[in-house]
Amino acid sequence: MEKPLKVDVVSKTRVVVRAENSGPSANGLEGGCYHRVAHTSSSTGTKMIFGLFIPSTYTCNLNAASIPALFWLSGLTCDDTNFPIKAGSKAFEAAEKHGIAVVMSDTSPRHDDEIPNVDSYDLGIGAGFYVDASASPYNQHYKMYAYITKELPGVLKQLNIGSKKSISGHSMGGHGALTIALREGPSVWSSVSAFAPICNPTDCPWGIKAFTNYFGSTEAGTEHDAVCLLNKKGASIFDDILIDQGTSDQFLKEQLKPETLVQVAKKVGQKVTLNMREEFDHSYHFIGAFIDSHIDFHAKFLTS
Amino acid sequence: MEKPLKVDVVSKTRVVVRAENSGPSANGLEGGCYHRVAHTSSSTGTKMIFGLFIPSTYTCNLNAASIPALFWLSGLTCDDTNFPIKAGSKAFEAAEKHGIAVVMSDTSPRHDDEIPNVDSYDLGIGAGFYVDASASPYNQHYKMYAYITKELPGVLKQLNIGSKKSISGHSMGGHGALTIALREGPSVWSSVSAFAPICNPTDCPWGIKAFTNYFGSTEAGTEHDAVCLLNKKGASIFDDILIDQGTSDQFLKEQLKPETLVQVAKKVGQKVTLNMREEFDHSYHFIGAFIDSHIDFHAKFLTS
Repeated sequence: MEKPLKVDVVSKTRVVVRAENSGPSANGLEGGCYHRVAHTSSSTGTKMIFGLFIPSTYTCNLNAASIPALFWLSGLTCDDTNFPIKAGSKAFEAAEKHGIAVVMSDTSPRHDDEIPNVDSYDLGIGAGFYVDASASPYNQHYKMYAYITKELPGVLKQLNIGSKKSISGHSMGGHGALTIALREGPSVWSSVSAFAPICNPTDCPWGIKAFTNYFGSTEAGTEHDAVCLLNKKGASIFDDILIDQGTSDQFLKEQLKPETLVQVAKKVGQKVTLNMREEFDHSYHFIGAFIDSHIDFHAKFLTS
Repeated sequence: MEKPLKVDVVSKTRVVVRAENSGPSANGLEGGCYHRVAHTSSSTGTKMIFGLFIPSTYTCNLNAASIPALFWLSGLTCDDTNFPIKAGSKAFEAAEKHGIAVVMSDTSPRHDDEIPNVDSYDLGIGAGFYVDASASPYNQHYKMYAYITKELPGVLKQLNIGSKKSISGHSMGGHGALTIALREGPSVWSSVSAFAPICNPTDCPWGIKAFTNYFGSTEAGTEHDAVCLLNKKGASIFDDILIDQGTSDQFLKEQLKPETLVQVAKKVGQKVTLNMREEFDHSYHFIGAFIDSHIDFHAKFLTS
């Protein structure tokens, strides 16, 4: 019996060659395609759109085995489309090779004139910081933690996607990936990686601004700070945490601070593989250069 | 003795890992980086900016051997940045593998308020059609044929790039690649390929509009129409012409017409490898899916 359709495929584009056994499913999804999928979110109270790549081996049979998925979280100013447009060609090729779906979330609520916003690239729309805001005026809609950790996995489960889940992201999205994985642990997220993540947001301008506005204080942000979380756990959580960081990244010293994460990881015994990439900057060209190695990394955990 | 600097590197981003022997040259170029390069164009009478990827093995020694280059021509509405942003991650990886530079041209003059333009996506700025306009008001600045075939190779020669040259492009840029290669022949362009090219512009709305405005008549466009040029040559010009075309391309039947090119190629004995890609559309996702196979194709001619 078919499960009820609860999503709307707003666009679908073939991105890898179709497999012989692949065809449209009842919900319009298709293996080998990149989709934009819309649904009404109970977390944010708005329409949300996420990107979804399904490998061509997806049978589109809802009774078949669920496929593993990598969740990608983008950085400040991005919506669901930046990653697939700018890093999709290499990412989809790598995901196809391993038979992994890629789920590309938005970074905040939007698509609704009533969402509180400010004229700022690092707060409000495009800057949800992957937390559930508790302070007015953001506390009604800015619930990206609940959205990523509870609602979106539930939507994907209905689509038979996410038998296992891993998580990665860039900058603010790298912060989201690290903190979500550290909070929920390896029973929920098989592996975690990040590109140029904000490692210690309670000690950098972006994080202080976000936590002050979303929670009312920086201190409340310690529960969403990778350095603080790892220090509090006091033990190794994952086999390895993979991080790539460009040495010419303009935000490295003031905002990102990977060395602080490496220090606390060493103290508590958590393995972190930090690749300092000489002369790479904070752009999607940096992500594009190494995204295949991150997908290879996650595949070891997702397909074993 | 250093050659005089005649270009301005307006931005430089590392996109592949630096080779040990790579470093900045006197002109600011660096192997393993994607650059935007500005110069004053005598063809268009404006500033022109082109994208330039140099493989990491580039020695940055102006006395060393020149490296081969693939020229990429983009389609309607694009400037020099669309291809590197949307297809760069796979294209640069493939070019790095083969030690080939990638030159990404603009599609028309711009960067000057005096350039004639119309409120239309398929004429004027972003739509130069790779011809030298002869009709007013376009005949002063719209000289993209001279720019691509004479001026840009000269600029690159000064940078020690383009020992051999191949050419490819998408849609209007595929038309540009095919017509430039057929007009100038294999002694100038080692190989030619295209994604979803406008094959017979004198017989489609985009081409008729462009030729009528740039030349004053459609008939004058036969000298810039791949089907007409191949028919006139009446013989095989290249070992092979590689074309990829999506079957779900919304412009396939009305604007692109690859089957007309294949027919005339068969008549005159020119080999054309036309890959009809099931369910792919006209987007950069389509280019991203197959750009590595095109660069592999050109490498056979550029590095032999």
